[in-house]
Amino acid sequence: MMDCEFEGAGNRRPVNVVLAQDGRSVRIIDQTLLPGTYAEIDLTGAQECFDAIARLAVRGAPAIGIFAGMALCVLAHGIAEGETKSFAPGDNAVGSYSLATDGFLIRMAQVADYLKASRPTAVNLEWATSRMMARARDLLGVPIDSFLCEMRREAQSIQDEDLEKCLLISQFGLGLLEDGYGIITHCNAGPLATSGYGTSMGPVILGHERGMRFKVFVDETRPLLQGARLTAYELVGEGIDTTLICDGMSSNVMKQGWVQACLVGCDRVAANGDTANKIGTSNLAIVAKRYGVPFYVMCPTSTIDYSCATGVEIPIELRDGEEIKTKFFDRIVAPEQVKCYNPSFDVTDCDLIDAIVTERGICYPPFTESLAKLR
Amino acid sequence: MMDCEFEGAGNRRPVNVVLAQDGRSVRIIDQTLLPGTYAEIDLTGAQECFDAIARLAVRGAPAIGIFAGMALCVLAHGIAEGETKSFAPGDNAVGSYSLATDGFLIRMAQVADYLKASRPTAVNLEWATSRMMARARDLLGVPIDSFLCEMRREAQSIQDEDLEKCLLISQFGLGLLEDGYGIITHCNAGPLATSGYGTSMGPVILGHERGMRFKVFVDETRPLLQGARLTAYELVGEGIDTTLICDGMSSNVMKQGWVQACLVGCDRVAANGDTANKIGTSNLAIVAKRYGVPFYVMCPTSTIDYSCATGVEIPIELRDGEEIKTKFFDRIVAPEQVKCYNPSFDVTDCDLIDAIVTERGICYPPFTESLAKLR
Repeated sequence: MMDCEFEGAGNRRPVNVVLAQDGRSVRIIDQTLLPGTYAEIDLTGAQECFDAIARLAVRGAPAIGIFAGMALCVLAHGIAEGETKSFAPGDNAVGSYSLATDGFLIRMAQVADYLKASRPTAVNLEWATSRMMARARDLLGVPIDSFLCEMRREAQSIQDEDLEKCLLISQFGLGLLEDGYGIITHCNAGPLATSGYGTSMGPVILGHERGMRFKVFVDETRPLLQGARLTAYELVGEGIDTTLICDGMSSNVMKQGWVQACLVGCDRVAANGDTANKIGTSNLAIVAKRYGVPFYVMCPTSTIDYSCATGVEIPIELRDGEEIKTKFFDRIVAPEQVKCYNPSFDVTDCDLIDAIVTERGICYPPFTESLAKLR
Repeated sequence: MMDCEFEGAGNRRPVNVVLAQDGRSVRIIDQTLLPGTYAEIDLTGAQECFDAIARLAVRGAPAIGIFAGMALCVLAHGIAEGETKSFAPGDNAVGSYSLATDGFLIRMAQVADYLKASRPTAVNLEWATSRMMARARDLLGVPIDSFLCEMRREAQSIQDEDLEKCLLISQFGLGLLEDGYGIITHCNAGPLATSGYGTSMGPVILGHERGMRFKVFVDETRPLLQGARLTAYELVGEGIDTTLICDGMSSNVMKQGWVQACLVGCDRVAANGDTANKIGTSNLAIVAKRYGVPFYVMCPTSTIDYSCATGVEIPIELRDGEEIKTKFFDRIVAPEQVKCYNPSFDVTDCDLIDAIVTERGICYPPFTESLAKLR
C-alpha cells in the first residue's frame, strides 16, 4: 500500500465536509437544523449520501461537488469490499476486488450516476463525479488499496482546491467593494456552501477581517430560508453588521440608497453568462438594475458550463410544493387544495450581471468572450 | 327615536365586517387564524378594536376603513352611556349624555385619533374616521338616541358604498382582461380585505362567475403570508385555478410567458400615482416591467391621498422584526442576534404602473392629470 498521508491546503478557515481518514465515511453539518441546532452526521451508504444532497443537509454548489467526490470515494470502498448497500430497486450487486477492474469501474459509474440524479441544476455535482471517474479510469488495473488511496487523495484535492479558489475569488471580489458599502445577498454561498471564505460572502468576510466595515442585507430566501438560517448565522458569527429582510423588501432597501453592491453565488453559468442560482436571484438582479446597483456573481470556474450556450439549456429543479405550504413550519400556511409551483432555481439573464468573479479573475460583459478566455 | 332600519346594498356577496343591529359590537373574521381556522369575534372596547387592526385580525385598506367606522360607532355608544373603557394611559373619563354635545364630540375625536394610530399607511382608516366625525359634527345638539342611530347608518353606508365600489372596480378591471389570461397578484385585496368582490381580485372573481377562465399566480407575500393564507383561500374557495408561489418566483413565472397581467390593491395612492401597497409590490412591478407585463392597481377613490404629492410623503409602517424571524411559525428561522428590517409597505413608482382602476373609471398615465380629474 502506497503512502496515503495528505493534508488540507493549510487555509485556516474550517471546512464543513470532512472525509474520514480511512475513507469509509464522510462527515457533514446537517444544514437543515441550523441555526437552532448544530449537528454533524457521518454518512456511509449510497442512499444516505443521495438523501443528504436531495434534502439539502449538504447544499451549496461547491459543497455539493466536494461532498459528491468524497461520497463516491466512500462508496468505492464499499464496492471494493463487497459491502455495497442496495441503492436502487432490484439492485443487489455484491463482490470484492483485488484490482481496479472494468467491472469495478462500471459499478462505480452506476453509483456516480445515482448520486448525480439527486439534484439536477448545480453543475458542480456532475463536474466532481466526472473528475473522480476520470481519475478512476486512469488507475485501471492498479491494486485496490492503492486505488482507494488515490480516490481519497483526489476527493481531498477537490476540497483543497476549493479552499484556495474561494480565497482567490474573495480577493478578486474585494477589489470591487469599498469600505462602508451596503451589500445585499441572496441565499447562501458562504463558508457552509463552499469551503473557507465561501464565494458570495468571501469578499465581505475577508474585508471584515482586514478591518473594513460593511452593512449586509440578507434576503431570507424563501422557501427554505437559506439566507435567514445560514447566511445570517454565518455573518452574525463573524461579527459583521447583518440585517435580515424578506425577499420582497429589496426594492424598498435599494430605493433608500442603502446598497452599493449585490453579491450572489451561483449553481451553473452558461457560456453567455446567463446564471442559474437560487430562486429569487433573478428578481433581485432586475430590482438592482432598476436602481443602478451593480450585480456581481461569484463562482469557481467549475461552475461554468460551456456546453450550455444560454440559460435556456440549464435544467431547473422543481421541488415539492409542501416546501412552500408547510416545510420548516409546524403550521400549515396555505389551503390544502392550492397548487404550488416551486422551482428551486431561476436564471438571471446575462444583461443584468455586471461581473462574474472567478478564481482566475473577473469577467466583464460581453461574457461570451470573457468567459471563453478562462477556458 | 327615529326609524333606524337599514339594509346592505343588496350585493349578494357576503361581507366580513358586521355591525351589530344595536350598534354595541362589531363582528370580524379573525384573519390571523386563516386558512386553518375560521373564527368570528365580537369587539366592543377601544383597546380591542385598536388591537384588531394592529395585529391584522382585520386588515386590507378598505376593510380597515369599514371596521374603523363601525368601531367608532360602537365606541360612541359606550361614550354615550358612560361605559367607556380606558383606552390610553391615565384615561378614566366617564359620563353620560342625553344630547350630542361638544364634550361628547371631543371625546369621540379622542377615540378616533386613538384608532387612527393603529396603522399609519392605509389612508382609508383616516378617511373613514374623518367621515364619521364630520357626520357627528353635523348632528351636534341632536338627542343621543337619534345621534347613535345616525352613526350606525353612516358606518353601514361606508360598507354599502364599498360593496358597490368593489363591484364597479371589478367591472372596469375586467375590461382589461381576456379569457384565459394568466394573472399574478400580491398580498390580499380580495373579499376579506374589502367587501363583496374585493378590489385586486374583483375582476378575476367576477369574470370567473361569468364563465371566463383565468390562471392566477399568488405571491405568498412574506412575512405574514396574506397571499398564501388569504388570497389562495379565497380563490380556491371560488373554484379558480390558483397556484401559490414564493415572492421571489415571479421572474421565473413571467419569463415563461405565463402571466398577461398583474393585479394588486393598494393602501394609499399619491397625487402623482405613486402607490403604497404591501411590501414586495414594488419588486413585482419592477419585474413585470422587465417582462412587459401590464401592472394594474385597483382601489376605491378613497385610497387616493391628494395631500401627498408623491410617494415620498407616504408614511411607511415599520413592524416588529420577529414577524420575519418567527411569527406564524413555531420554529425560529434566523439567529436570535440578527437585526431585522421589516417595513410593512413599499411604494411602487408611478412609471411602473400601467393603470389605476377606481369605481369612477380607469386612470392612465400621466396620473397627476388623470387622478386629478377624479377629484
